[in-house]
This record gives sequence, structure tokens and C-alpha cells, in this order.
Amino acid sequence: MATELPGEGQGASPDAEDTHLREVLVQGEKVFDGHFLKVQRDHVRLPDGRVATREYIRHPGAVMIVPLLDDGRLLLERQFRYPMGRVMLEFPAGKLDAGEAPLRCAQRELLEETGYRAREWAHAGVLHNAIAYSDEGIEIFFARGLVAGHQDLDEGEFLELVSHSAAELEAWAADGSLTDAKTLIGLLWLQRWQSGAWALDWQPAA
Amino acid sequence: MATELPGEGQGASPDAEDTHLREVLVQGEKVFDGHFLKVQRDHVRLPDGRVATREYIRHPGAVMIVPLLDDGRLLLERQFRYPMGRVMLEFPAGKLDAGEAPLRCAQRELLEETGYRAREWAHAGVLHNAIAYSDEGIEIFFARGLVAGHQDLDEGEFLELVSHSAAELEAWAADGSLTDAKTLIGLLWLQRWQSGAWALDWQPAA
Repeated sequence: MATELPGEGQGASPDAEDTHLREVLVQGEKVFDGHFLKVQRDHVRLPDGRVATREYIRHPGAVMIVPLLDDGRLLLERQFRYPMGRVMLEFPAGKLDAGEAPLRCAQRELLEETGYRAREWAHAGVLHNAIAYSDEGIEIFFARGLVAGHQDLDEGEFLELVSHSAAELEAWAADGSLTDAKTLIGLLWLQRWQSGAWALDWQPAA
Repeated sequence: MATELPGEGQGASPDAEDTHLREVLVQGEKVFDGHFLKVQRDHVRLPDGRVATREYIRHPGAVMIVPLLDDGRLLLERQFRYPMGRVMLEFPAGKLDAGEAPLRCAQRELLEETGYRAREWAHAGVLHNAIAYSDEGIEIFFARGLVAGHQDLDEGEFLELVSHSAAELEAWAADGSLTDAKTLIGLLWLQRWQSGAWALDWQPAA
């Protein structure tokens, strides 16, 4: 059946000709303006001309860092995530400040949350974690040549640093005890980079 | 440095002793009740006794299906995702109806969105895609023995079916043109299953 499906060879990229799928803003407004969450509600024109409603979070964007310790282990955080009601194992991550470049944010968040600076950085890619209801993108960075220093957590931020081998993380991903999406995608990148399938362009820290 | 980090050997699982990280509800309320998004604002007691505010989306949960065609290609969707402003390449997915079992939802969503039924199903795991501001979990299923039938899209739902090889999807993940988090995690599972590293427990469709 596969060869009968349309769209083959079009690639994953957006296509300017996608008018049969595209939704167009009619009018919109911010309907919730919380301390952390901003919700937008837009009325959109569907491909068939009808009008529908789209509600979504406006997010400033974020970064994640996959920090490689010199002994081959990875630096992670254990953090209570209130919406989940439990402690989650995660790669360090944080939100962009207004106007902040992603690499600068990655270096700031790694330092603030873990106390580490890195001698080399590589940008791996970006992930979009909730495309049905958020415009958040998380830029993925790798860091190596780590040098320990002092943590500088935000007020009200509590987390615990841990280090684990890739094999341990793989086992926890496989058995369902590691479920954070960005961290799983960090593992995908790590596995594909370490296997030689995907490249990373390492640059010295500015 | 790695051996000096605390927490080694604790595993990825939540720990009942994590009182130094845990946040406890003081009081909460629903502060936005949209057509699609429900926002909760809770006041919580932090580990140091202070009170902070947590805003997050209440989500019913979702499923994703990694559908394996008999020729080895994968069945995916191209769908305009309004918060992203563009068409995204994704594995089929959808929200749980109230009280619906995840496998039942996966079978329903695969049929409605693609027209395919599957002879065999395997539950791979769960991913949590926005742990800072949503309680959403996406249950990951694999489906094989696919038999084509008729799509039955929801009103206002427009999508295009495509099929691609794992190698094509890997290349687009590596070059940044495939960025949907659940789909990247589907690729991680696919790669680790096909390499023999992770197992899938296939069951005939009920």
C-alpha cells in the first residue's frame, strides 16, 4: 500500500504549496495572562473555508544541554515537576530570556543550575514538544570539557545533580522510568552521534 | 568530578524520600477553562517552607502510533500545526477520550486518521512532553500488519498521509527538518528496537 500514498519524496520541510492544509488567522486575542503561562485564542480559516478556534500557549523558547563529563558519564538533574507530581530525571534546560541567544542561554543555564562551565559546545538541533497547543521550541546543545564551579539556582528552584552512564539512561528509557521527552531526544542524539550516524559541530566556548 | 556527584545509583524512578525536592499543594483553582486548554493555578509549599505559584495545563493524555508498513516503510501524517505556523511531519497521535484505554484510543486514532487497522500492536512506553507546564503523557504504541481502509477525520481536521523509510526519517531528524518531539522519540524507539537493544511485546489486535 505504501507506494500508493501521496506525498512521497516531499521531505519533512514545510511546503509553500501546502494550501490544502494551511490555516489562516482571522482574529485572535490573549485569553489568559498568567504569571508563567500566556494563552492565545485565535479564530482561523480552515482549508475548506470554515472558521475554527485554536487555543495555544505562547512560549519564549528554551534550551536543553546534554553535558558530557570527562569520564564519559552524563550530568543530569533530578527535579520535582509539579504538574507530574514527582521527581523527574532530566538533562539541564531552561527558558530563553527576552532577546537572549540560545547558546548564551545554554551556557547561563548550565552554570546556574549545575555550576559547570564547558570548554566546547555543539548545537544539535531543535525539538518542538507540544505542537498541538504550544509554540515552544527547545534548542538542543551538547557540552564537553566540563569544569565544576558553583551552582546559582533561582529563588524557589530545588534540584539535585546526578551523573549516569549512557547505558544506565538507555536502560531507564527502555523500562519506562525515564520519560521526559527532551531527555529522551537527548539520548537519541547521543546514541546517533556516538554510533557515528549523526555529526556534531563542536566549537570552543566564546 | 562525576564520582563526587550525589544521587548515583538511585535510578530514574521517583523516590518517596525526595522530601528535599517535593512541592506540596496548599490550594489551587482552575484559572482558565477554554474550549481545548484548561489551566490550573496552584499555590504550593516549597521544600524550604516558602509558598510559590505553579500554573499548568490539565491534559487528558494522548497516544502516538508508530505504524510499520509491510514493505518496511513507516506511515506518517503531514498536518498544519497552527501554533507552529507550518506543516509538521508526525506519527499519528490523538487525545484520549474520557475513560478510554490507551490501546483502544491508539486503534481508534489510527483508523480515524489514516484508515488503517493493524493486526499486531506493541506498547513501547510513555513520554511526558512538557513537564514544566503540562501533565500530558503520550503512550507510545507500535502497529504492524497494517490493512488499509477508510479515513474518518474529525470535522475541521485536515491531514495528508505519507510513507517514508526509517533512513529518510533519520536524515530529516539529523538535518533539523523533523522536529516534532513525539515523532523523534518514535524514531528513538524504532532505532533501538530494530538494532535489537530494546524489546517490543507484540500482541494480536483484540
